[in-house]
Amino acid sequence: MWRQYKFTVRSRGRGTYDITREINDHLLQAGITMGLANVFVHHTSASLILCENADPAVRRDLETFMAHMVPDGDPMFEHISEGPDDMPAHVRSVLTHNALTIPITGGQLALGTWQGIYLWEHRKHPHPHSRSVTVTFHGD
Amino acid sequence: MWRQYKFTVRSRGRGTYDITREINDHLLQAGITMGLANVFVHHTSASLILCENADPAVRRDLETFMAHMVPDGDPMFEHISEGPDDMPAHVRSVLTHNALTIPITGGQLALGTWQGIYLWEHRKHPHPHSRSVTVTFHGD
Amino acid sequence: MWRQYKFTVRSRGRGTYDITREINDHLLQAGITMGLANVFVHHTSASLILCENADPAVRRDLETFMAHMVPDGDPMFEHISEGPDDMPAHVRSVLTHNALTIPITGGQLALGTWQGIYLWEHRKHPHPHSRSVTVTFHGD
Repeated sequence: MWRQYKFTVRSRGRGTYDITREINDHLLQAGITMGLANVFVHHTSASLILCENADPAVRRDLETFMAHMVPDGDPMFEHISEGPDDMPAHVRSVLTHNALTIPITGGQLALGTWQGIYLWEHRKHPHPHSRSVTVTFHGD
Repeated sequence: MWRQYKFTVRSRGRGTYDITREINDHLLQAGITMGLANVFVHHTSASLILCENADPAVRRDLETFMAHMVPDGDPMFEHISEGPDDMPAHVRSVLTHNALTIPITGGQLALGTWQGIYLWEHRKHPHPHSRSVTVTFHGD
Repeated sequence: MWRQYKFTVRSRGRGTYDITREINDHLLQAGITMGLANVFVHHTSASLILCENADPAVRRDLETFMAHMVPDGDPMFEHISEGPDDMPAHVRSVLTHNALTIPITGGQLALGTWQGIYLWEHRKHPHPHSRSVTVTFHGD
């Protein structure tokens, strides 16, 4: 059995957005007991991660780390047409994930106790931004 | 045909643990000729990589590189509740992989000659630690 | 329905090679309407990324970034048997992707407007080098 759907995340500037419940709720409706879930983001300046979901400081520290490793406005970058966060957003996207594949077990996403699914918006847009995500469930 | 099973890696401190044979042995029993294998780790401070399997120095150098790029005890990190290697373990996990998807061809994992599957334990626990891995095989 | 095939990229030194059309053309022949495409590279010194495909400066900047983050000839590396770019190639491979999984929607790869599929050759071989890629399509 296959189920595929698309949804939009309204990001409000750089940061991580929890999409775990959105995906798990759809899985419950799909009625698949065992198989795989694929989550895919259709952008090159936003990405997906599985991250510790208990202490928000973990996600703040991830931002701190990335800001240190890939600084905005670094003069080594040539592609700056959309601003100082443009090329760093592409680098952050390449270093994390465009897609996650997660097992389905017992009708649920088989995530570990502390694993949440996050869309990571890497652009600093002050206004809301729409990010498209496709989820594909497949199994019995 | 779907086959899914879970196993545990007993890690003994930071380092890489070869799980290629464990997975290939199960695939031989599953009797799937062509398809995909998904390997998933249920943690946010351990991860998975495909890595050169001939010279152990490659994996030592990966440790050296990570220790340099994400130093333990870096004062920029706020999430330090479990010690100086706590937040670096989460960063290392995000920069590598929670899941690997590998083709099955001719009844075997279609790995390159030098590709091994490794669980990478990022915590420095001096005592053994259990890490859960789910493998999902799917194919004809 | 499953379709699996293998092809070779002839790389000519370090850099990114667009393989989007190669894969999409095969998908059109496979006649799969909805499902998933898995792209896998059988090497540990070349990798796969989804990257912005409009401005070539983005890929030049990715090279600049990687050359800065993982410098060739860094004396911290022990595995140097094939030259100063040997171990950096393995690190770059681990930090990017051995496999990409992309949804198939409406008979096509459901890539975003600016997403291209690239093989990233990390070795500086002056002579052409063959890189093997396996593509697995699965769906209805």
